[in-house]
Amino acid sequence: MVEPTADLLRACIEPVLPFAERLFAQLREHTADGPGVSREPYAAGEQFAHDLLATAAREHGLEVAIDLAGNLYMTLPGADRSLPGWITGSHLDSVPIGGNYDGAAGVVAGLTILVGLQQGGVLPLRDITVMGVRAEEVSSWFGGSHNGHIGSRAALGQLDPAELDKAINARTGITLAQQMQAAGFPPGAFASTPPHLQAARYRGYLELHIEQGPVLERQGLPVGVVTGIRGSLRARSARCIGAYTHSGAVPHEYRSDAVLATVALVAALDREWARIRAEGGDLVFTVGKFFTDVQAHSITKVPGEVAFSIDLRSEDLPTLQAMERHARALAESIAVERRVRFDLGSFDLSPPAAMEPGLQALLNEGSRELGIVCGTLPSGAGHDAQDFAHAGFPAGMVFVRNANGSHNPEEAMDIADFNLGMQVLAWALTR
Amino acid sequence: MVEPTADLLRACIEPVLPFAERLFAQLREHTADGPGVSREPYAAGEQFAHDLLATAAREHGLEVAIDLAGNLYMTLPGADRSLPGWITGSHLDSVPIGGNYDGAAGVVAGLTILVGLQQGGVLPLRDITVMGVRAEEVSSWFGGSHNGHIGSRAALGQLDPAELDKAINARTGITLAQQMQAAGFPPGAFASTPPHLQAARYRGYLELHIEQGPVLERQGLPVGVVTGIRGSLRARSARCIGAYTHSGAVPHEYRSDAVLATVALVAALDREWARIRAEGGDLVFTVGKFFTDVQAHSITKVPGEVAFSIDLRSEDLPTLQAMERHARALAESIAVERRVRFDLGSFDLSPPAAMEPGLQALLNEGSRELGIVCGTLPSGAGHDAQDFAHAGFPAGMVFVRNANGSHNPEEAMDIADFNLGMQVLAWALTR
Repeated sequence: MVEPTADLLRACIEPVLPFAERLFAQLREHTADGPGVSREPYAAGEQFAHDLLATAAREHGLEVAIDLAGNLYMTLPGADRSLPGWITGSHLDSVPIGGNYDGAAGVVAGLTILVGLQQGGVLPLRDITVMGVRAEEVSSWFGGSHNGHIGSRAALGQLDPAELDKAINARTGITLAQQMQAAGFPPGAFASTPPHLQAARYRGYLELHIEQGPVLERQGLPVGVVTGIRGSLRARSARCIGAYTHSGAVPHEYRSDAVLATVALVAALDREWARIRAEGGDLVFTVGKFFTDVQAHSITKVPGEVAFSIDLRSEDLPTLQAMERHARALAESIAVERRVRFDLGSFDLSPPAAMEPGLQALLNEGSRELGIVCGTLPSGAGHDAQDFAHAGFPAGMVFVRNANGSHNPEEAMDIADFNLGMQVLAWALTR
Repeated sequence: MVEPTADLLRACIEPVLPFAERLFAQLREHTADGPGVSREPYAAGEQFAHDLLATAAREHGLEVAIDLAGNLYMTLPGADRSLPGWITGSHLDSVPIGGNYDGAAGVVAGLTILVGLQQGGVLPLRDITVMGVRAEEVSSWFGGSHNGHIGSRAALGQLDPAELDKAINARTGITLAQQMQAAGFPPGAFASTPPHLQAARYRGYLELHIEQGPVLERQGLPVGVVTGIRGSLRARSARCIGAYTHSGAVPHEYRSDAVLATVALVAALDREWARIRAEGGDLVFTVGKFFTDVQAHSITKVPGEVAFSIDLRSEDLPTLQAMERHARALAESIAVERRVRFDLGSFDLSPPAAMEPGLQALLNEGSRELGIVCGTLPSGAGHDAQDFAHAGFPAGMVFVRNANGSHNPEEAMDIADFNLGMQVLAWALTR
């Protein structure tokens, strides 16, 4: 019931690294799909991962529970079980032909820490529960209208089961509700009972995850503490409507050039992004799609239409909202100036989720005590941690360096970095 | 053998307007294709037009000749046949589902003027030959590698017959050489004889054509004298190569964003275009194609590739060449600044063709004498007149107002404007 020192934690974690490596190897072997892995939510790949982890937890005498949405919980009891416990974990599904670590690393880390503490004779103060979350990557398998992150939202009472009827499997055409039913988790069951997880009963949620940008990699840092999960504001189907005319015969003053008008808009937003960066604001700005109409465009026609997208992400909601207002005002003035019409459509908001300052401080303290040089960075991608934050849990995240981005077979996590990430996480979980 | 006054010319032309209207009506009726007309080169539609005009010319006692490439010549002998004669005319083919006037108006105008002079008792000083040119629109019917404008270049000795083997009919797959052979004009015949038309034997070439931009329409002018035919410099398949990365997780300094880099390039070229316009230079600049890769792009990916085109047109060759140099220099510096690679490819040049200053002056003098308020403007599209200019003929053009652009069924030429255009043309042809 002591809080273990940095030396003791290292002595607990390092001997069980081979346990973690075996789990990763088994996951890769049994869910391989060409060069990567495929762990489809509520299907064979994800189920294999859940069964593998649950079996390993039972073999080590941990308490194992599964909620009505199929999320897995593996608990090492603490010295005082009346205290609010920790939850740590991540998801066990993957994108199609994805990497072995996105998601799974967080669950393997939690289970490895529990086994290490157990074998090192460390009794934590509080219960530590490792959660294997279902269906975080559902957006890459299911089309239709839904908000993803099924497992965590179901456990937290934040999922309307009607959403599951609108998510359509891109491969088979069945709904997610049907797929859950077939996997043994009928949506009616979890929807009609109180949420499995309630904020008041927990100390907080901590998630270890590989980083998805090259920030730690480029900075030469093995781990980082996440400051917040960026929210997004997205115009999915913006359009600029001009008029197709002869590229040689029509002079400037009679043109309604949709490409030059959209270029003017995007260039102005790019300048605004630079201004916000220069002032230290958090923002990324991406026009991932920008295309003239392949049926109508021609080298020798003034372009009459452009379709494009805008993806704004920031830890700061007012920054997102100010950029939307700026984009709309620019579109209005450029439309007049350049004789075109912009239809930006609606901007879909996914609000930012701040990581709890006390947990950030705790993770930073741990890294200092452990002598691990640690970065701080926002997460640009969504994670289960945001659902916990939105549900009122104190939430925190530890990123582990990854050379090649995520959602692809080239994800590259070094086991030495993973070791350091686990140590920082274990520090916090044993406070 | 007098040079007719403005009054006499009006008295010659106005009574024969119904003759012109009948020709237009017959052309439309017999080459109709849905809402427009289709007069495929060296095929039934074009042949109908040639037969119709040749028959009308013979009925009025004009000399009719057809060269080995199938071009039609209809001549009203002048008082002194030893003097270099005029050629006037245009092409009789159309684009698929095009308008009734693009091309045909120039041939109908010439023939109507000859009939009008004849019936008005005016004997011109010089021979006036009206030419019905073959296959000017061949680019819209034949793919493959060729330079279009077949009839005029064949007549002027500027066509390498090997080109005809590389032009492939988009509908039937046969070569243009095969299509000409089938129409009774084997390419070997014209290629092995001296050019039908030689500059030294002619006073010049004058072409009436509908305008293809909205310049006269917007300026409220019925006719205009063309200053030159813009040349073009075109990058058909330019590319910007960046790297696809996560739109949320990758910060600005690690991005290689192909859209923002291409936007920076196009915006800078747009500013340079404004500078050249402000200094009175002649230039149009069009990026008709600008597209991210539909297989790879996504709202949530930093775009890794953009394909785009650049079409520069000017009456002034150095202006075109300076813009290419500017584009290449910009691409080089933006590539460094934004961590991308540009591949602009080669720029294909079609050189500008100045209209002969003396002929411009003659046409302007005619419009003043006739009391017709006349614009001056460049032609942004290519015309047979450019081939005559390149072959050393003094060449000039008269544009007639047209509300709806060309190459479409909505072309709209008012017969009153056509009347004024013919008067200006007749003035020059009778000097």
